[in-house]
Amino acid sequence: MNFASDNWAGAHPAIAEALSAHAAGHARAYGDSELDQAVRAKLSAIFEREVSVFFVATGTAANGLSLASVARPGGVAFAHREAHLIEDEGGAPEFLTGGARICPVDGAMGRIDTEKLEAAIHRYPPEFIHAGQPMAVSITQATEIGTIYSLDEILALAGVCRSHGLPLHMDGARFANAMVALECTPAEMTWKAGVDLLSFGATKNGCWCAEAIVVLNPDIAADLPFLRKRAAQLFSKSRFIAAQFDAYLTDDLWLKTARHANRMAERLAAHIDSAPQLRLAWKPEANEVFAIMPEAMHEQLQAAGVSFYPWHPPKGFDGGMAEGKILTRFVTSFATTETEVDSFGEVIR
Amino acid sequence: MNFASDNWAGAHPAIAEALSAHAAGHARAYGDSELDQAVRAKLSAIFEREVSVFFVATGTAANGLSLASVARPGGVAFAHREAHLIEDEGGAPEFLTGGARICPVDGAMGRIDTEKLEAAIHRYPPEFIHAGQPMAVSITQATEIGTIYSLDEILALAGVCRSHGLPLHMDGARFANAMVALECTPAEMTWKAGVDLLSFGATKNGCWCAEAIVVLNPDIAADLPFLRKRAAQLFSKSRFIAAQFDAYLTDDLWLKTARHANRMAERLAAHIDSAPQLRLAWKPEANEVFAIMPEAMHEQLQAAGVSFYPWHPPKGFDGGMAEGKILTRFVTSFATTETEVDSFGEVIR
Amino acid sequence: MNFASDNWAGAHPAIAEALSAHAAGHARAYGDSELDQAVRAKLSAIFEREVSVFFVATGTAANGLSLASVARPGGVAFAHREAHLIEDEGGAPEFLTGGARICPVDGAMGRIDTEKLEAAIHRYPPEFIHAGQPMAVSITQATEIGTIYSLDEILALAGVCRSHGLPLHMDGARFANAMVALECTPAEMTWKAGVDLLSFGATKNGCWCAEAIVVLNPDIAADLPFLRKRAAQLFSKSRFIAAQFDAYLTDDLWLKTARHANRMAERLAAHIDSAPQLRLAWKPEANEVFAIMPEAMHEQLQAAGVSFYPWHPPKGFDGGMAEGKILTRFVTSFATTETEVDSFGEVIR
Amino acid sequence: MNFASDNWAGAHPAIAEALSAHAAGHARAYGDSELDQAVRAKLSAIFEREVSVFFVATGTAANGLSLASVARPGGVAFAHREAHLIEDEGGAPEFLTGGARICPVDGAMGRIDTEKLEAAIHRYPPEFIHAGQPMAVSITQATEIGTIYSLDEILALAGVCRSHGLPLHMDGARFANAMVALECTPAEMTWKAGVDLLSFGATKNGCWCAEAIVVLNPDIAADLPFLRKRAAQLFSKSRFIAAQFDAYLTDDLWLKTARHANRMAERLAAHIDSAPQLRLAWKPEANEVFAIMPEAMHEQLQAAGVSFYPWHPPKGFDGGMAEGKILTRFVTSFATTETEVDSFGEVIR
Repeated sequence: MNFASDNWAGAHPAIAEALSAHAAGHARAYGDSELDQAVRAKLSAIFEREVSVFFVATGTAANGLSLASVARPGGVAFAHREAHLIEDEGGAPEFLTGGARICPVDGAMGRIDTEKLEAAIHRYPPEFIHAGQPMAVSITQATEIGTIYSLDEILALAGVCRSHGLPLHMDGARFANAMVALECTPAEMTWKAGVDLLSFGATKNGCWCAEAIVVLNPDIAADLPFLRKRAAQLFSKSRFIAAQFDAYLTDDLWLKTARHANRMAERLAAHIDSAPQLRLAWKPEANEVFAIMPEAMHEQLQAAGVSFYPWHPPKGFDGGMAEGKILTRFVTSFATTETEVDSFGEVIR
Repeated sequence: MNFASDNWAGAHPAIAEALSAHAAGHARAYGDSELDQAVRAKLSAIFEREVSVFFVATGTAANGLSLASVARPGGVAFAHREAHLIEDEGGAPEFLTGGARICPVDGAMGRIDTEKLEAAIHRYPPEFIHAGQPMAVSITQATEIGTIYSLDEILALAGVCRSHGLPLHMDGARFANAMVALECTPAEMTWKAGVDLLSFGATKNGCWCAEAIVVLNPDIAADLPFLRKRAAQLFSKSRFIAAQFDAYLTDDLWLKTARHANRMAERLAAHIDSAPQLRLAWKPEANEVFAIMPEAMHEQLQAAGVSFYPWHPPKGFDGGMAEGKILTRFVTSFATTETEVDSFGEVIR
Repeated sequence: MNFASDNWAGAHPAIAEALSAHAAGHARAYGDSELDQAVRAKLSAIFEREVSVFFVATGTAANGLSLASVARPGGVAFAHREAHLIEDEGGAPEFLTGGARICPVDGAMGRIDTEKLEAAIHRYPPEFIHAGQPMAVSITQATEIGTIYSLDEILALAGVCRSHGLPLHMDGARFANAMVALECTPAEMTWKAGVDLLSFGATKNGCWCAEAIVVLNPDIAADLPFLRKRAAQLFSKSRFIAAQFDAYLTDDLWLKTARHANRMAERLAAHIDSAPQLRLAWKPEANEVFAIMPEAMHEQLQAAGVSFYPWHPPKGFDGGMAEGKILTRFVTSFATTETEVDSFGEVIR
Repeated sequence: MNFASDNWAGAHPAIAEALSAHAAGHARAYGDSELDQAVRAKLSAIFEREVSVFFVATGTAANGLSLASVARPGGVAFAHREAHLIEDEGGAPEFLTGGARICPVDGAMGRIDTEKLEAAIHRYPPEFIHAGQPMAVSITQATEIGTIYSLDEILALAGVCRSHGLPLHMDGARFANAMVALECTPAEMTWKAGVDLLSFGATKNGCWCAEAIVVLNPDIAADLPFLRKRAAQLFSKSRFIAAQFDAYLTDDLWLKTARHANRMAERLAAHIDSAPQLRLAWKPEANEVFAIMPEAMHEQLQAAGVSFYPWHPPKGFDGGMAEGKILTRFVTSFATTETEVDSFGEVIR
């Protein structure tokens, strides 16, 4: 019963198979193989627009280099206070951008609040050089707490960005999980809603290692080939990434694995909802479930073979975190089975 | 007949298989899985010493972060003029070290000359702050032109390093090829010869993507966990690297593939040696063969289906580069077959 | 009536004179002149300890390079939310440290709260590499809002630093103003209270340009000579800084100018206190006075020849900022005269 | 008899006086004072073009931030092998540009050779991302060895720059010395000859500390205000720099001091030329004289009260450096007197 993280899973059989299938033979290195090119073309088709695609090693690299590609000296990027690039990337965004500041913005349910974003940007007026200068806004879809921005919410944030001349980046480590939940297209969730730059993550949704920066706005990020190389993120045998994406995007595999993960989260949430000692902290919208439980229960469940993490309550969260209770996170993935979820259900009952 | 580069090959079947074998199930992320730990232990055993191991995405990352781990402000690292980290890493060593200078040092046959290294270091006297300060020496084994440092040569360079208090780094993108050529052990070619830090490359020798920094000197590089994370080089599903290394180091696979590649290079060299219009530029010692040929022949061979690259003659190379002749490079790998090599032999005869 | 900032003043006559006095003749460059050495010795005497001294061009450089000298990869420095290095240094601390994060910590009256500092540090547990690692704490004395840490408060914060192995930096842009207010010695306000590194500012207190990093803890910051050089902060004719410091530290000039500035602030505060439409936001402790006034009054006073700035209310400040009121800042300096202050008093009555 | 360096001199009396004259009163900080504005306007008049002007603390800062303003990821700047920014800036250009490489280019007599520049640039073909990308060319006028580029030579180098789309930077630490030697205008020696960016140095020619970046090409370097702030190079009491430049540019003071220094160099060279044991290494063209002398003589002259430096012979210099001889450098400045020079003449006869 492993709900620790979707990156504790391995690789989907179709991904492993694809890697094996492409293992033989020679091909041009550094992203110039036919397979690399085909996958880039496939992504342009899927996004219904000519996009630039840059494979990188990690989601952190995708986020950091996305910001680096629009960086300015004294630059400030705005992200939700609980965003991965604030909480979990070990200074990579700061380092890869040459020292940009990532300014936390608040907002309920893991989503940046439009007005608070405006207020945060206003702390950096263009004429006041001493404060630095705004350079980008980054949102996470699905968010770090398993919620989702609606298309209208993205549009509203993009409007703020436009009014300040700022590019909008989306951290899509769980892009597919959000997209299938919204039942929209990749284009609708990105450039049609005003997103300029995307960290397109596939690792958490069934690949071994498949992360890409997708540049949706052709007017920006021209230096990314050099930025990626300089950051030591250009794979020589790049087609081992391409092969994973190829399988991932074939026959809707990515949508299937994402739908499965979301369904497992829903099922797991139902179990929690009906368990006497647990309570859902909020309604899960993708593949993460947050539950409040007695502190002691954490150890009991671990002992019963359930892997999951206690979680730091979001700022301002007052969902009944009474004395002796803790917040916990459960993540599902393509590899989660109904049996596993139902076993968990039995354990907590 | 593909001799463009050993990174144009795919993955050895045993590597592909290992990846498939580990695809199922859950395991701790970010390098904490049992497999990750086992591979690290295996490397300590192979190197006959407790080593620290850091998987990274590319050889460039291994080189750059190795230098970063011993970086100093105003720092200068010394490497051979034709070293990969000077010629082919797009500024990554400079960037990852926060702006160190990589100072080229000359030396015949791709190897740093001991006296020239001494002279280069003397341009940066400790009391002359305006010049910056020496911080490391990096050698490449096998070198960029397919030659090899003898153990004595490494020891001599390490002596220079010691006398200046500098760590010695080895770029081992083709570590195994050099080692099997020298018929020595990993320990002998590294810490016993005075090497402190190793970029241990397996990608060119049969893996998809398996590069590691191996810290041989326990007194240095304590910050590498944070340096790697900050550079966005910490894989979440790290065991997909571990799985490759596991297979690579099992049953001497790495030695077998390296020996095979070297043998293919020898065979290819023999063909060139006996061809009327080509000439070996110098004796190959590992898996790279450099040949001098008439300029027109390049196109003819390509047309005949032979992939290879023209090469920039090393500084000071006067091996009879007459008018109308070019220097070319042929690389063999685990994936090179005797048939391929012999077909090439027929083409050039 | 100029109360815009203490850096709007010019130079004290004694400073200008010292510069003229040292204009003739030759002397060793880059800080090796006899005058440079004498000033460094003088500072060791004043601080009652062998200190290392590094002149730099700006207070921002002193802060940024102080942090750089103790930087670690993925490093996080903690400072008060309203600290100069968070609000006013245009990304210099981030840049000069190679990408460190400056984490804001709250606290009443411009001072870091000890418990909140503890809580902030705990968000970066040593074993959780993904968050980065704490590297320093920086306090501002006097604070950005004209208040002062007592020696006990500094000791308490130093205790937190010690328990986490973190160096304590003091931004002393207004060091003298704080010291004369506390009626203590330089040693008492720094290393005896646990301060390891000091930005020792003299520009705001009567010099043209005299800023120094004073390293109080001999065990740290060994790389500062190279860090300063690399940041292009090593003056060639360094004795033009030394000459200023020499005059500044002679015959207690620095204490006299600081006492004068503080007295002028007190006098100005008294005027505000007795004016019908203004109110002191809080009691001034050094040379800055913060007042609440009707919004319209700002323009009226400017028109009457009074220079000062509206100010962003500190987070959590609820000192009766009613509708239509604004917070404003008045700064005094060595150049402020009683006449000037009393004229202001008349204007506001 | 002090010929160690022009930065061993102090300040010209007119400079010291100007500083004193502006010491009283208040003025806007951070470069917004009327005096700051007037000096910038004066520079536009002198350069016969609307220029942007940025005061910085050191010539190294001017060079490094000039390059930073045109930096690109994986960027490579080309400079003469003996250039100050390669030999004497402690890694500042690399650091301030975020890791650019400064590639040495050879050329006789301290001047970049046009063909060698072309060849150097060709090592970085635009399509070969692995090498990085050219970003700028920097020349030094006067050069580090006291020679001067003719206007035609600058034009020729600018032509190479244009053909590769590269900006041309001039390190003008000794700008005035070169200009009066060429008897040309500031405009002729810069933008009319194709120079885009200038480090305009006045410190070595009579100021305490007066260095500025002058942007001659209005299409570039838009980010300099933020780059300077981020590098902690924005002075608060900026008018203490402005006051120096103001006096420097008034009544042709700068031309007079430069002419004087050059004349003293000529006079000193004549003494050397007629001394039995010394020989001019090459004809001085500005305010630096290089002489070859017996090794033992160095100590004798020092003992006789002559300050000067031995110098590293330029690469390829074969001007009769026989066994037992050393190359030495003598620098003159505004502060050098005829008496001093003639005393030296007597000593060496």
